Formats: sequence, structure tokens, C-alpha cells
Amino acid sequence: MTGEAAFIAALRDIIRHPGARGLLDDAAVIAPPIGRELVITHDMIAEGVHFLPVDPPGDIAWKLLAVNLSDLAAKGAKPIGAVLGYTLAGDSVWDGAFVAGLGRALDHFSVPLLGGDTIALASGAPRTFGLTAFGEAPPPVPDRRGARAGDTLWLCGAIGDAGLGLRIARGEIEGPRKLLKAYRLPMPKLREGRALAPLVHAMTDVSDGLLIDASRIAEASELAVAIDLDSIPLSSEAQEFGGDRVFRLAAATSGDDYALIFSASPDAAEAIIALGTGAVAIGQFNAGSGLSAHDADGPVPLPQTLGYQHGN
Amino acid sequence: MTGEAAFIAALRDIIRHPGARGLLDDAAVIAPPIGRELVITHDMIAEGVHFLPVDPPGDIAWKLLAVNLSDLAAKGAKPIGAVLGYTLAGDSVWDGAFVAGLGRALDHFSVPLLGGDTIALASGAPRTFGLTAFGEAPPPVPDRRGARAGDTLWLCGAIGDAGLGLRIARGEIEGPRKLLKAYRLPMPKLREGRALAPLVHAMTDVSDGLLIDASRIAEASELAVAIDLDSIPLSSEAQEFGGDRVFRLAAATSGDDYALIFSASPDAAEAIIALGTGAVAIGQFNAGSGLSAHDADGPVPLPQTLGYQHGN
Repeated sequence: MTGEAAFIAALRDIIRHPGARGLLDDAAVIAPPIGRELVITHDMIAEGVHFLPVDPPGDIAWKLLAVNLSDLAAKGAKPIGAVLGYTLAGDSVWDGAFVAGLGRALDHFSVPLLGGDTIALASGAPRTFGLTAFGEAPPPVPDRRGARAGDTLWLCGAIGDAGLGLRIARGEIEGPRKLLKAYRLPMPKLREGRALAPLVHAMTDVSDGLLIDASRIAEASELAVAIDLDSIPLSSEAQEFGGDRVFRLAAATSGDDYALIFSASPDAAEAIIALGTGAVAIGQFNAGSGLSAHDADGPVPLPQTLGYQHGN
Repeated sequence: MTGEAAFIAALRDIIRHPGARGLLDDAAVIAPPIGRELVITHDMIAEGVHFLPVDPPGDIAWKLLAVNLSDLAAKGAKPIGAVLGYTLAGDSVWDGAFVAGLGRALDHFSVPLLGGDTIALASGAPRTFGLTAFGEAPPPVPDRRGARAGDTLWLCGAIGDAGLGLRIARGEIEGPRKLLKAYRLPMPKLREGRALAPLVHAMTDVSDGLLIDASRIAEASELAVAIDLDSIPLSSEAQEFGGDRVFRLAAATSGDDYALIFSASPDAAEAIIALGTGAVAIGQFNAGSGLSAHDADGPVPLPQTLGYQHGN
């Protein structure tokens, strides 16, 4: 078998859904649930940009699925399928480990792989993978543009673990496996997103950094947002590395957390806490524009870069 | 603006559908039609593999959409949206021409762009683009696995024009603009696919070559297929270059035609012709396995390569 034929044969082994038509057809066919909205997201990852050449291929596959599922989580959607775009770079052992990891991730999140495409690149070209994930959600689906003046900004999930994990992966620091896992094997908050969706006005996931993603809700909603840095939860593992203003700013501007941030009316606070997602209030939306931060010592000067900015 | 911000701003100008949420959200949201199947396809194209570095960027964008819509056509589906995966390679003029061409193609086929992702690659890395297209179709959706022994093999569309167009693009031959257009700006047979779908047992598009795509229906349906080479329609432009057995074999093994081939019961012939799609009968499915070809002079020895084979 050629590289591509072998790869597709391996993919066929992780296919579970009849809508994939055994990867033998031009397209996948699924019946969308009646009365639900279809939620669609597509994220790409590339070697040297989103993952390191030394990262295990199975972990890269996990992350490719997880970053897309995190977008579905932010829309309160339940995943119903995924299609894969894969570039073969001439290393069948690497490809096999990728498929095995993808199969584990798909099974873990109960997401059926429905199809996709593979192309063979010239050897040496950077690996580039894309995944389109589909979910279904009851209307109305939370919108990044939906925050209202007076809304509370909430955070569901820890911030900064993945940034420390990246530094561990790069060999810059030593630290516990849990932090490395936060970087390599992020866990999209699907259950939390579905539970929270009926209570929120706006919701997004924290993929590029808490500050930049919060500012994107504010900008899309034509509001200002103020964040209380002290209220940002750090995991006990992260706290081993610090907890002061400088450390918290670093945590709030490193990406890959895949936590959820959302805006909700102050009236919804009790109902939000009662859901048991561990979400905490970290700021407020107000009339105006821009992002500001403060802590117990007063206003916090913002760094020039609020997070991972594409194209910079 | 950075390259990526400028690109997304340009994309925003070609957005027409509210489900795209102005490209400001994590995901697109559309309401699937009640009682219809959702049909999903994802095709990638890469520089040096699927397009030539000299091809105009707008034409590459058209082709990326068209090859995906051709898969929807083969399932009798009406397109309802697309998401784009785009790699920026540091040439904003090229990127702008791509977006302009994509906009023209989306408008031509009335397909809303719903979202996607862009990543910046190292300069010099080959451009790699992916597109996921969604369509809706009434059940049952034609399956490549559905051919039955005794079915007629039909072809809707001309074969060989794109292969000649590729040779023109490469500067190997000179020929009319219509053949070059068949290669660079293929027209997916969406209207024909929807009209034919209720009458077929199996259907696929001819993307890699008539012989290989016909053999894939046969293989997926666990049947043999016999093709009458003389019955394959050649356009008047292609006939200027030949028409004998060797020429017809070349046409039937060159890809990029985006015609439709399908199997149907002989009883359906009258109804198929009455649709006015121009489909012609070119062969038959029988019990057994494998592909054979014949013409007025008898059996035709098959070339080693039946079409464009991925990974070869």
C-alpha cells in the first residue's frame, strides 16, 4: 500500500458511524436533529506554529480534535461529527501514531469521524492539519456578540497551566506532568458549556489567552471589560511557580487554556454557581470600549501583547 | 494590519450569511432543514499537487470550492455552506486575489461562507488549502456502494477537456480557452446531480479519471463494470486533438473532469433521458469484480494507471 492508502486504511479502523459510509463515498451523510441548530467550527494546526516537532503525534491528534471541540463547548453544543484534512509527510510510523491518538480522542469524546481528505506533501514541508467539527445545540446559541453592559464576566477553568506546560515541553522549566498534559492534552469543557449556555449572554473559549479572548467578547459586543486579576483561579500546580501580579499577567496572556469565559446578568449568579461547574466571577462589562485590569494594589498596566495573536 | 488580520477583513467582505456571525464567533450556526440529510465533504488542494504555482489565485479559489461542490452534486445535495482552512504564505496580493476569486465562486453557486481558520506558514512552504462544504438532500442520498448487477453505467458531462486544459496550462500544447477553463474553472453539476439523484442506485463525480472512478463504484458495490470507450462523449474542442482508442483512453484516465457517473436500472433509461441532463449510457455493471473496457475493435487493454491515484 502507498502511504495514503495505508493511512486511509488505518482511518477506516477508527470509523464508528454509518454516516461515514466506510470512507468509500464522496461525502458523509448524517441526519441533523430536528429543532436544533447546527454549529460548525474549523481549526487548523501547523508544525512550528501550534505544535512542536518533538510533540508526540498522538497528542497532536488529540489537540487538533480538542481545540475544535472547545469551540463547540463555547456554543453549548454537543459534538455530532468531525471531518479531517491531513497532510502526509512521508513518515508512516508518525502517521500511524497520529491515527491511533485520533482514535483515542474520538472515542473519549464520543465524536464520530465522518470523512475528510489526505494529501501527500513534498518531504520536509511542515505538517498542516485541519479539522471541521459539527455540533448540535438548542437555540438560541450563545454568541460572542451578546454581552450587555452590567454583565458579570465569568471564567470556568484554570488559567496558565498550559502556558507552563509549553515551557516544560520546550525544556525551559521542569514541572509536574499535569501541567504538560494541560498543554498537550487539553480537555474541552463540553459538559460545562452545555450546562452554562442557557444562562449566558455571550460565551467563548480561552484559546489565545484570557485577556485577549475577554477583549474579543467586549469588542464584538461593543462594550468595555474590566478584569480583577486576583480573582483568576490558578491551579495548585501553577501556584508552585508563583502567584503575584507579574505571574498572573503571564498566566492571563498565555494561550491554550481551553477554559470558557462568558458574560451573564448579575441576577444569574446564583443559578450559575448552583450548576457546580466551578465558574468564578472575574470581571464586569460596562458601556465604553477596551480592556482594563486591576488587583488589590490598584490598576494593572497591561502588557503590549494580550495573548497569542494570529499573524504576529 | 497584519497579513492575517487583512485577510480576515477581506473575507468578511465576502460574507453574506448571518450564520457566519461576521466571523467574530468561535463557530458558525445554521438551522438544518427539517427532514433532510446533512451531506458533508472536505477536500484539500496543495501547490504542486493540485494546482500549478502559475495558476491564477482566483482560479485556485474557484477550484477549491468547485471540487467540494462536485462531491455534493454527486450526492444530489444542494449546498448550504462552506468553511475555509487557509495558509498564509506572506504574499498579500496573492491572498487578495484568492479571496476575490472565492467571493465570485461563492456568489456564482449561491453558497454562504460560514467561517474557517487561517494560519501563517513559514515563507516558502507550499500553500495548502482545505474547504468543508455542507449540503442538504432528501433521503435516500445516493451512495457509491449502491450499484446493482445489471445496472447501466451513465456519464453526465464531457471527459478529457480538463486533461487537455492541464497540458495547455503547462505549455505542452496550444488550444482553445474553453479547455483551459475546464481545468481551471470546473463547473460542478449541481443541478444535474439533484435531478438525477432520485433515479440512480449509485453516483460519484469524476475527479481522478473516468476509469478509476467507475472502478471505485464497482469495487464499493462488489461488482464488475464494463465500459464502452466509443460511447464516451468528447467535446467538439477535444475532438480537434483526436478521437481514436489511444486518445479516448487518455481522456478516460485524466482527472479533473467533475462530470457525474452513476448506475441505474435499465428500466430508468427513459426517465433519465427525459431529464435533459445530456447523460449517456457508457457501460454496464455485472456480477464479479474488476473493470474492463471495449470499443468497436474489441476488448481494450487497460493502462497500468486508471487515473490520478493519491499517494502515487
